[in-house]
Amino acid sequence: MRKNLILVLLTALTCALPAAGQQAIFTAEGLRSPQVNEDNSVTFRLFAPGAGRVTVTGDFIAGKDGGWGTAEMTEADGGVWTWTSGPLATELYSYAFNVDGLQMTDPSNVFLMRDVRSIMNIFIVPGERGDLYSVNDVPHGTVSKVWYHSLSLGTDRRMTVYLPAGYEDSGTRRYPVLYLLHGMGGDEDAWPTLGRAVQILDNLIASGKAEPMIVVMPNGNAALPSAPGEGPSGLVQPTSDLPKTKDGSYEASFPEIIRYVDSHYRTVRKPSGRAIAGLSMGGFHSFHISKEYPGTFGYVGLFSAAVRSLEDSSNPIYSDSDAKLAAQFRAGVSLYYIAIGEDDFLYEENRVLRSYLDSHGYPYEYHESSGGHIWRNWRVYLADFVQKIF
Amino acid sequence: MRKNLILVLLTALTCALPAAGQQAIFTAEGLRSPQVNEDNSVTFRLFAPGAGRVTVTGDFIAGKDGGWGTAEMTEADGGVWTWTSGPLATELYSYAFNVDGLQMTDPSNVFLMRDVRSIMNIFIVPGERGDLYSVNDVPHGTVSKVWYHSLSLGTDRRMTVYLPAGYEDSGTRRYPVLYLLHGMGGDEDAWPTLGRAVQILDNLIASGKAEPMIVVMPNGNAALPSAPGEGPSGLVQPTSDLPKTKDGSYEASFPEIIRYVDSHYRTVRKPSGRAIAGLSMGGFHSFHISKEYPGTFGYVGLFSAAVRSLEDSSNPIYSDSDAKLAAQFRAGVSLYYIAIGEDDFLYEENRVLRSYLDSHGYPYEYHESSGGHIWRNWRVYLADFVQKIF
Repeated sequence: MRKNLILVLLTALTCALPAAGQQAIFTAEGLRSPQVNEDNSVTFRLFAPGAGRVTVTGDFIAGKDGGWGTAEMTEADGGVWTWTSGPLATELYSYAFNVDGLQMTDPSNVFLMRDVRSIMNIFIVPGERGDLYSVNDVPHGTVSKVWYHSLSLGTDRRMTVYLPAGYEDSGTRRYPVLYLLHGMGGDEDAWPTLGRAVQILDNLIASGKAEPMIVVMPNGNAALPSAPGEGPSGLVQPTSDLPKTKDGSYEASFPEIIRYVDSHYRTVRKPSGRAIAGLSMGGFHSFHISKEYPGTFGYVGLFSAAVRSLEDSSNPIYSDSDAKLAAQFRAGVSLYYIAIGEDDFLYEENRVLRSYLDSHGYPYEYHESSGGHIWRNWRVYLADFVQKIF
Repeated sequence: MRKNLILVLLTALTCALPAAGQQAIFTAEGLRSPQVNEDNSVTFRLFAPGAGRVTVTGDFIAGKDGGWGTAEMTEADGGVWTWTSGPLATELYSYAFNVDGLQMTDPSNVFLMRDVRSIMNIFIVPGERGDLYSVNDVPHGTVSKVWYHSLSLGTDRRMTVYLPAGYEDSGTRRYPVLYLLHGMGGDEDAWPTLGRAVQILDNLIASGKAEPMIVVMPNGNAALPSAPGEGPSGLVQPTSDLPKTKDGSYEASFPEIIRYVDSHYRTVRKPSGRAIAGLSMGGFHSFHISKEYPGTFGYVGLFSAAVRSLEDSSNPIYSDSDAKLAAQFRAGVSLYYIAIGEDDFLYEENRVLRSYLDSHGYPYEYHESSGGHIWRNWRVYLADFVQKIF
């Protein structure tokens, strides 16, 4: 409706550039960026005629310590800065621009994701993995933002619930439930956005590689009711503050979520119909919740888990781990799944866990990938895990 | 998780600025922007040490022809550019920055909205209206993204469905349904984001000013299955192209949406339990759909409606309007609601409609506001309309 802002830019662009180049670098609406080329190289463009230095920073550019790298863009005629990557592997990628020290998103690309406090643009390079993260022409599940009341935390709390395609028309059929937990700084929107959980589930269920399942994605920060801007404290900027994890209140309150889900959806109400998995802090939560309530979850997934490092050992939730793990494995676990990247800063913690499980003869499945503590890995772990449960 | 981008900026800021000023203009995480001050003036800040000119453009700054205005920001010590507005009325506002000709969002503010192709930051000035648009500590409805199949359009299509708080726990209780339609360039995400429809309904239902109702927000562009990035064509940038409106296919397909809703939710399946309302093109759709199916909708809302200007007169949907309107009012309409701003470019078209209704003795309710064809008006019309239906 409100196009005056972009029109100013478009007018400037149209005047500044020779007509010959317009087909390749312009769409009907303006500059084309990013442009995935035939060889899966990607071209980035930014109109910044007054700038002295423009760079693109992204997770597809090699950086220090496996982090994001930065590439220098070059100015062509008319003030359009450009950079083209080499051919990229199929993946969902993130990036941002930097103009003379000022970080900004790409004004030609409306597709954005928020990670904690950072807003970044995204694009997908097609192929097997990119297609798995895309909305395809398959039956789609229903994605809901649902509020449940937590008596123990004393507040209404928001969660994301995925119902598989066909759920609404399946009569009395019951479905298994995956409880899928985010990391520190995340919230109930993290797995559906950064994790592409909805697309992964839609696509794997459609191809018969995963069982139709309900996926419940709660907010794992016990001190907050919801994602930033979605709760009663208003449009308060997110912080990187440590969530209230160490007091065990989230783990203690988790049965309330299970009760809500079991009483509002047609669920399989036994261990063979329940899985819990999470990344980083969500792996910590999955580790402790699954042993706190033995015989509840038939499947456990620890993705780059902060296995023990967030514990407050004085808290009963984190006490008696030996006995609790024994009870959990005695009650039966169909799959105890551990996945981590070889460069992850939590690698050693997970190695210690594996040693412990080995020494007690507790069976588990282990996947080691390349890379570190990144969403690219967690999407892969999720896609693998959901093919192995239920 | 990925904080290196923002850390670079934070480090630069921390080094560049005197400690004395930090409490007011910094949060724990960085520069504070926007900051709503005690007198409801608002301060904007951007760290851009290399810039020559920085401006803020927003819908709270008077511009030409009622459009957005622009204010010059000034550079203080350390490269932080600042501008403070006068005291603002309570409202949800939008803005963007411009640095040396380059439009950008505010890197200190993660709250964004997309309007067609433009990404803008938002903030709320508290008070009666701002509070109505805020998430408050009241019972919250469930918001779902649902796919239905359209036989006539030959595709699965996405819509947003709001279920009022308590729906899931109300046994066999049936609820009335408001079908709420967006304008040209909008989609099924427009009313829930730009329109704050979820917050408006939650708050008005909680205070007893509106009946608990289901609100269905379909995609009104018959050529598209979904909002940009949410359908099988992938992350394709939205365009300002005219949706396929003139062929009547959307109006012809609308009963499929009603059938889906009536067969999947506990609805009141009679005219007294059905309302249809829309803004601009959605007003056009509401006008034509409500008369095409007389005796279907007891309540009709036309918000800044493009009443007749999108018609292709050769199409049967748009033919015989006199007879169809006669049949509609003969079947009974409890409320025919027309609202428009005095500066709206569709004002004359709505005046002609009112004359027509007057001359035929068809009753309607008319609201004229200040301003033009803007979301600020449509939110007000929605909040007024939902208090008068069911």
